[in-house]
Amino acid sequence: MGLDTDIQKIPAHLRQEKDPIFAFNRQVIDATADYCVAYKLNTAFYEAQGVPGWESLQKTVEYIPTDFFTIADAKRGDIGNTSGLYARAFFDNLPFDAVTVAPYMGKDSVTPFLEYADKWTILLVLTSNAGSSDFQRLSVNPEFKKVNGGEWTLSLNEENEYLFEKVIKTSLQWADESQMMYVVGATRAEQLAEIRQLIPNHFLLVPGVGAQGGDLEAVVKYGINKEVGLLVNSSRAIIYASGGADFAQRAGQEARKVCEEMRKLLEKYYK
Amino acid sequence: MGLDTDIQKIPAHLRQEKDPIFAFNRQVIDATADYCVAYKLNTAFYEAQGVPGWESLQKTVEYIPTDFFTIADAKRGDIGNTSGLYARAFFDNLPFDAVTVAPYMGKDSVTPFLEYADKWTILLVLTSNAGSSDFQRLSVNPEFKKVNGGEWTLSLNEENEYLFEKVIKTSLQWADESQMMYVVGATRAEQLAEIRQLIPNHFLLVPGVGAQGGDLEAVVKYGINKEVGLLVNSSRAIIYASGGADFAQRAGQEARKVCEEMRKLLEKYYK
Repeated sequence: MGLDTDIQKIPAHLRQEKDPIFAFNRQVIDATADYCVAYKLNTAFYEAQGVPGWESLQKTVEYIPTDFFTIADAKRGDIGNTSGLYARAFFDNLPFDAVTVAPYMGKDSVTPFLEYADKWTILLVLTSNAGSSDFQRLSVNPEFKKVNGGEWTLSLNEENEYLFEKVIKTSLQWADESQMMYVVGATRAEQLAEIRQLIPNHFLLVPGVGAQGGDLEAVVKYGINKEVGLLVNSSRAIIYASGGADFAQRAGQEARKVCEEMRKLLEKYYK
Repeated sequence: MGLDTDIQKIPAHLRQEKDPIFAFNRQVIDATADYCVAYKLNTAFYEAQGVPGWESLQKTVEYIPTDFFTIADAKRGDIGNTSGLYARAFFDNLPFDAVTVAPYMGKDSVTPFLEYADKWTILLVLTSNAGSSDFQRLSVNPEFKKVNGGEWTLSLNEENEYLFEKVIKTSLQWADESQMMYVVGATRAEQLAEIRQLIPNHFLLVPGVGAQGGDLEAVVKYGINKEVGLLVNSSRAIIYASGGADFAQRAGQEARKVCEEMRKLLEKYYK
């Protein structure tokens, strides 16, 4: 369940509450708890409200019962000591179980999160947006070399490796499936089978089902592993199912639908 | 001036203040304003303190006189509509002039920031940390193709292009030097001359001088352009020059030193 709560989209009657975002989230959590295993809060929606938004974020994650897995979808990443402060923000100051991290700055931007042995780092790999093709799907070729003063040559075991595959392979040197997960957008389901070759045992966080158009069956078919290994996120399609007083009830119904759909797909694909 | 203010590193006597981080920042700003043109706040240091930290961030950026350029060093980036919320956070809710943005998620993760025509987007390109070699300096080869059912071939105008160069070239299609800047770490000064070939007119934000070991003379020598085009950041070496009651005075002295050094380098290299 993605709690991407935009103050501009919640029912009008909640705007009179002292903390409208938290009032909305609390009712959505109560209504959906029977149908999900995790709550993901995208920090952008909270930061957009400044200090009150950060308060809503804190109240929401503290309200979620501790038997649910909580994800700060923050896409952070900075030089080593600074990434350590982001880890402190989400793992010490707030009680999140996991945080999403952007890989562009490399190893020392990610490892400070991994120092929290009982927490999870979820690395962006192949995202669900159109722009994911700009860099994530570039061919990278670490074996490509200039030799003999000017002639380009290729190594023998050449493969047309994408940047996102290189990110996965490199990150496997930093931590294993006991601490690391990967973001793979549902809109890229066709790539899931190949990604599973590289990381058969890891959990994947899969956003983009629902409003972004990702196909749940393709995600399960190509992404499932022996522990299921999929955290499929849906947000807008559930939390904004109704803009009226029945928003929580309707969110519960939509969450239940996705849950039932997932149950059927597990019966079909989980061996 | 980088206001990377860590509550664990500020003088002990300030911890009795109602808002120790703001108390520290205010005095540092007063003491350094004569020697800098911009203040950069790395959001990680504030977020690590939760809600009170976000309050300190807001008070600090609102305290900085409006004739200084203010940078939220936030390294944000998300899918399109969500990046728009980060832009709202730093440009509408807070009065920052610029925000640093991570490129991994591509075009639609960056363009929402560019919709603020009077603000600046500062794209991470080649960062100052050790991990910058992991992905930013990978060779990418968009012209590399598989043909005739299995044989790899290279296009004729082959060049060994790094990912960070590809990021620059691609981003030039999104905005020009009136809205975009680039982060190039001072520890990568040797690369500045090549980067200037690609972007002769853009401003560069150059962190890593001082505590991270970057060489200011090399930065100016290789990075200067006809409008200077360099925003050189120093943080720890200035703000923690003294851990005692004279911290602000010593910060002012250190800022003045860097300012004087920069003045001499401009005399030498600015034509």
